[in-house]
Amino acid sequence: MAYHEIRGGVTAPRGFLAGATYCGIKTGGHDLTVLLSEVPCTAAAVFTLNKVQAAPIAVDRRHLAATGGRARAVVVNSGNANACTGEQGERDAEEMARLVGARFGCPAAEVQVASTGVIGVPMPMAKVRAGVEQIALSADGGHAAALGIMTTDTRPKEISLAFDAGGVEARIGGMCKGSGMIHPNMGTMLAFVTSDAAVAPAFLAAALGRAADRSFNMVTVDGDTSTNDTALVLANGLAGNAPIDEHSPLAAAFQEALDVVMMHLAKEIARDGEGASKFVEVRVRGARSQHEARLAARAIAGSSLVKAAVYGADPNWGRILCAAGYSGAEVDASVADVTVGEIPLMRRGEILRFDRAAASAALRGPDVLLGVDLHLGDGEAVAWGCDLTEQYVKINAEYTT
Amino acid sequence: MAYHEIRGGVTAPRGFLAGATYCGIKTGGHDLTVLLSEVPCTAAAVFTLNKVQAAPIAVDRRHLAATGGRARAVVVNSGNANACTGEQGERDAEEMARLVGARFGCPAAEVQVASTGVIGVPMPMAKVRAGVEQIALSADGGHAAALGIMTTDTRPKEISLAFDAGGVEARIGGMCKGSGMIHPNMGTMLAFVTSDAAVAPAFLAAALGRAADRSFNMVTVDGDTSTNDTALVLANGLAGNAPIDEHSPLAAAFQEALDVVMMHLAKEIARDGEGASKFVEVRVRGARSQHEARLAARAIAGSSLVKAAVYGADPNWGRILCAAGYSGAEVDASVADVTVGEIPLMRRGEILRFDRAAASAALRGPDVLLGVDLHLGDGEAVAWGCDLTEQYVKINAEYTT
Repeated sequence: MAYHEIRGGVTAPRGFLAGATYCGIKTGGHDLTVLLSEVPCTAAAVFTLNKVQAAPIAVDRRHLAATGGRARAVVVNSGNANACTGEQGERDAEEMARLVGARFGCPAAEVQVASTGVIGVPMPMAKVRAGVEQIALSADGGHAAALGIMTTDTRPKEISLAFDAGGVEARIGGMCKGSGMIHPNMGTMLAFVTSDAAVAPAFLAAALGRAADRSFNMVTVDGDTSTNDTALVLANGLAGNAPIDEHSPLAAAFQEALDVVMMHLAKEIARDGEGASKFVEVRVRGARSQHEARLAARAIAGSSLVKAAVYGADPNWGRILCAAGYSGAEVDASVADVTVGEIPLMRRGEILRFDRAAASAALRGPDVLLGVDLHLGDGEAVAWGCDLTEQYVKINAEYTT
Repeated sequence: MAYHEIRGGVTAPRGFLAGATYCGIKTGGHDLTVLLSEVPCTAAAVFTLNKVQAAPIAVDRRHLAATGGRARAVVVNSGNANACTGEQGERDAEEMARLVGARFGCPAAEVQVASTGVIGVPMPMAKVRAGVEQIALSADGGHAAALGIMTTDTRPKEISLAFDAGGVEARIGGMCKGSGMIHPNMGTMLAFVTSDAAVAPAFLAAALGRAADRSFNMVTVDGDTSTNDTALVLANGLAGNAPIDEHSPLAAAFQEALDVVMMHLAKEIARDGEGASKFVEVRVRGARSQHEARLAARAIAGSSLVKAAVYGADPNWGRILCAAGYSGAEVDASVADVTVGEIPLMRRGEILRFDRAAASAALRGPDVLLGVDLHLGDGEAVAWGCDLTEQYVKINAEYTT
């Protein structure tokens, strides 16, 4: 497929501006970020499945419903999740949208709001008001925005691509934050994707759902699912292509570009898992169905025992197979293959006399590949995670609420 | 209810003998244990729900089916799980039953087999044969047996009670092993309960299922479910009571004694969780149903973030509520209560101005109580777990496969 990487992150696509500032919500580092399109966008979002949902999510859903899936701006704060903050929390999130709409000239309902940080603390709205007043946006602000949305992340996470949209070049860019509390059905993960392609609303929502299933829903860091997770896509149409819907010849190109962006961001989250020293990719095939392959891949990537074994560079195929066994997928240990890197440890149920030193070396990272073939069908899936280290425990024992 | 604690563990009930020996399956410590009843017993067992099940479980199921739920002996080895060992593994487990039957004079089908240790390594049968030959059983061997079945456990886990069975004193004893890989639907957890009560087979199986749901299925250490988990109950009838079935006036007394024994053992497992520095009890009430209360309690007890917060003595009610939120139970954060020890942190959705130092002190252990009232119904449940420490990671990164 014809795409190539370009610079610029979320401001790589035409007509997008971004900026970040420090207004004192957290200690040190930018904590307020705005992303703006010069023209209204088709918008789609997916949110956490946690029953406890942060206030901005309720506001975002209402705004997308009221506008029929349109938005022009996003405001993101770090340092405070605005979760478990009751009705005042929703009023605060609504005010954030109004402030940004007033400052940049669009209806509040076209502003999406996202928050990340501590739970249960009222939003410091005086600081937010001052922050929205002082923030400056620019057409090369993508990197500043990727920095602005970070919390325990150790580095910004962004990507941008150009792809052919029927004779015109369309662009897509993305940024995200997230390192702890990441799990299928989404951790404290905020992802924002921009495109200058023209995309029909229903197709954008469907494409986002598919891309999320292949990307953020296949990442696990610690098994906890947060109250705030959001993945939002804005498409403003400035590339000038014929609008893309499910039946468009460009549908596959847009889907692929979106998949590439979101899978890159998802892997960056796993790579930056709290306390992680290694990135882990789990490839399962031969499951009875894709659904079962996904269950098995996520269970292996999420197993504390597998993660600790990866940290210790221990080629513990037993823990890998055991995790598949409790995933809900059908597993017959007497026919399964297990590999670590390029080294087969078990083939058709038989434990091989593998070179232990080489297998351990394949687990020394920074990128570790675990493979399982269940030999029961055609289902395939890939999940991403990281190892479990003493540092993870330290970070999460000492994090101040 | 009329029961009192007595000494003796699994050999406290009349007619049970036990012993343990070292035969070289693992390095150091007893690794082969036999438990024997002088007369045949009614037997019932529950096994892991992992799709990958160890060889002894297949053999045990066949034996219980062949005998219609009778057994006289149990042989347990530590150091080798006999899991993922193929057909040879089952032949080895069958041979273990035959060896014990021959040595102690009962049919092989009346011998149950349990193994715990590393996965995927063939059983060292020459050592097992020598071990069975040399093992000595005695009527006060309960404590030796509780020591013999340990792996990464730091201490033996046992209990015994006497209760009134209609004018005669009946006794019940239990022992278990398990510290890591413990999770609902059972971790590498082996539990053996003996009683001299006379119990009908169908009632014994039903009573065991109920007790397991209240005990071992409510314990979580690290979320991994093992290939070998087994809880087995033997009742030999030597107390001379009228046989107990569902309609017997003694049914409630037996169920309570079994519950007390198994809940004690389950809590001992949580208390001895790998690397744990604190025992955590999670009490959920006000759920829409008991099922949802169980989901919420287990999710809270199993959350890496909650466990790390307990380790750090951080009264992080947000993580507690968040874990309930992704458990599958219905949660409305605007009506929920959260308490730590005796200290309310949130009441009816309102975050209280609690004394942070006192709340932190309530998390300093060794016993920590977390409470949630969802205020949505009558469902109640209790789950047990432990904190997550750097030591857990160290143990599991360095464990040799």
